[in-house]
Amino acid sequence: MKAATELADFRLRHTLRVRWAEVDPQNIVFNGHYLTYFDIGITEYWRAIGLPYPDGIAGTGGDLFAVRSVINYHASAHFDEFLEIAVRAAKLGNSSMTFEMGIFRDGERLISGEMVYVNADPESRTSRPLPEKLRKAIDVYEAGGPIG
Amino acid sequence: MKAATELADFRLRHTLRVRWAEVDPQNIVFNGHYLTYFDIGITEYWRAIGLPYPDGIAGTGGDLFAVRSVINYHASAHFDEFLEIAVRAAKLGNSSMTFEMGIFRDGERLISGEMVYVNADPESRTSRPLPEKLRKAIDVYEAGGPIG
Amino acid sequence: MKAATELADFRLRHTLRVRWAEVDPQNIVFNGHYLTYFDIGITEYWRAIGLPYPDGIAGTGGDLFAVRSVINYHASAHFDEFLEIAVRAAKLGNSSMTFEMGIFRDGERLISGEMVYVNADPESRTSRPLPEKLRKAIDVYEAGGPIG
Amino acid sequence: MKAATELADFRLRHTLRVRWAEVDPQNIVFNGHYLTYFDIGITEYWRAIGLPYPDGIAGTGGDLFAVRSVINYHASAHFDEFLEIAVRAAKLGNSSMTFEMGIFRDGERLISGEMVYVNADPESRTSRPLPEKLRKAIDVYEAGGPIG
Repeated sequence: MKAATELADFRLRHTLRVRWAEVDPQNIVFNGHYLTYFDIGITEYWRAIGLPYPDGIAGTGGDLFAVRSVINYHASAHFDEFLEIAVRAAKLGNSSMTFEMGIFRDGERLISGEMVYVNADPESRTSRPLPEKLRKAIDVYEAGGPIG
Repeated sequence: MKAATELADFRLRHTLRVRWAEVDPQNIVFNGHYLTYFDIGITEYWRAIGLPYPDGIAGTGGDLFAVRSVINYHASAHFDEFLEIAVRAAKLGNSSMTFEMGIFRDGERLISGEMVYVNADPESRTSRPLPEKLRKAIDVYEAGGPIG
Repeated sequence: MKAATELADFRLRHTLRVRWAEVDPQNIVFNGHYLTYFDIGITEYWRAIGLPYPDGIAGTGGDLFAVRSVINYHASAHFDEFLEIAVRAAKLGNSSMTFEMGIFRDGERLISGEMVYVNADPESRTSRPLPEKLRKAIDVYEAGGPIG
Repeated sequence: MKAATELADFRLRHTLRVRWAEVDPQNIVFNGHYLTYFDIGITEYWRAIGLPYPDGIAGTGGDLFAVRSVINYHASAHFDEFLEIAVRAAKLGNSSMTFEMGIFRDGERLISGEMVYVNADPESRTSRPLPEKLRKAIDVYEAGGPIG
């Protein structure tokens, strides 16, 4: 699968507006807040595939924990700008999955990155296979199938 | 009881340093972060009286929820400054209690305020009397008694 | 003027959705984040009256600093809920102004409060009268006049 | 240079305590806050080499912008735990530099990662060589030389 680099490469897009409290004295969004933006986008992803977090995911028998995040900062976002958070499930492993992430402003890619989650037992944190229902919902969604 | 207006009026003081992510484009700490500072101070208060949050409080049969917060902004804090968070239990009602709060920099009061909590059932959120053990630990601490 | 206690008492309403990162281990929005919500509402207020922050306000000769905030917590907000942030300019003094604030969920008031700002010189922080243009834009808006 | 995987591999270590507002309903630190912890560690790094941010860096003619961040989540941090933020300047390029990052609890590595910064003109954001003074201060520090 070709890497997602343009807004059109993502089915899931969610718009938000930069808050004053997210901007630092350099007049740009503080680098850590992009992970909050990623998280918001992924919440919308679960909703879009019909498994709203946390109950929808729990209903499949899954419990997901972040194991890796990568952010590449291409350009800065500023106060009050509208940003589009773009999310694509790029890789489904046995117990882990990878989201490709993008943040765009007027079609310009400001941020690219990825979030890797593993399905794990909430008590022991030992990994478990991704639930079949979760896997299928993602496959249908990314193939352009009906939502939910 | 006279209002606490100087650092010396507070037994509990906790020092922290302003983080870059807490400062906004006006080069001052964003106003909402002072409630995080208050919360840090109150966490230290519970530790100081021997009832560390949340288990120590739970062990008295209490579960506290914020019902009111007030902040007066006298002067601004800036990046990298050391601040002293000062906490005093000022009033113990039947089911609620009030902390007087201060934030100081080199003895200058930047912030004054209060936090009011009510003891409540975590399920129904109906108020319950403050546990006697909690009340006593506070009284001893504020009277200058031994810690813990 | 009667206090604003219902959603219908506010002309400015802005909807947002609670983020995962804003929820604490009690499963409720951490008390400090409501000040971020207030700030978002006030940003929308400035936009609604035609003076978007910060340039619109700066264009009137004003520079506003928070001097007091009050939050009353009536009920808790939870992850993923839609909240309506409601803002009303309730009092215009010589150099200061007070916003009445409300946060509602399905018409139920979860939060009430106020934010007081003073117009001040950004360097010296000495207070200055509210700019006439700012005062007039607020009066027109609250009287139900055209927007902007 | 061998990768830094243990606390002893880092000269710069800074201790902080997890705040209630940083913990999410899974009872673990929300993944985005680790970038705030990284930032706190790097602030301490600049102080340790005698170039406190932002004035010390500005005095070398530098202005640094984050261009990449990576976080690997090995285990979770919880409320009230003491964490050690560990920072090592691992690679100095022409205009960019890479910090290796670690977060430890009682010697156990919870988080590993990296932060890459580029020196750039604050207006045009075009990259510029790292200032010689900055480069030298880092080299001396990492070689075990005197501080400041």
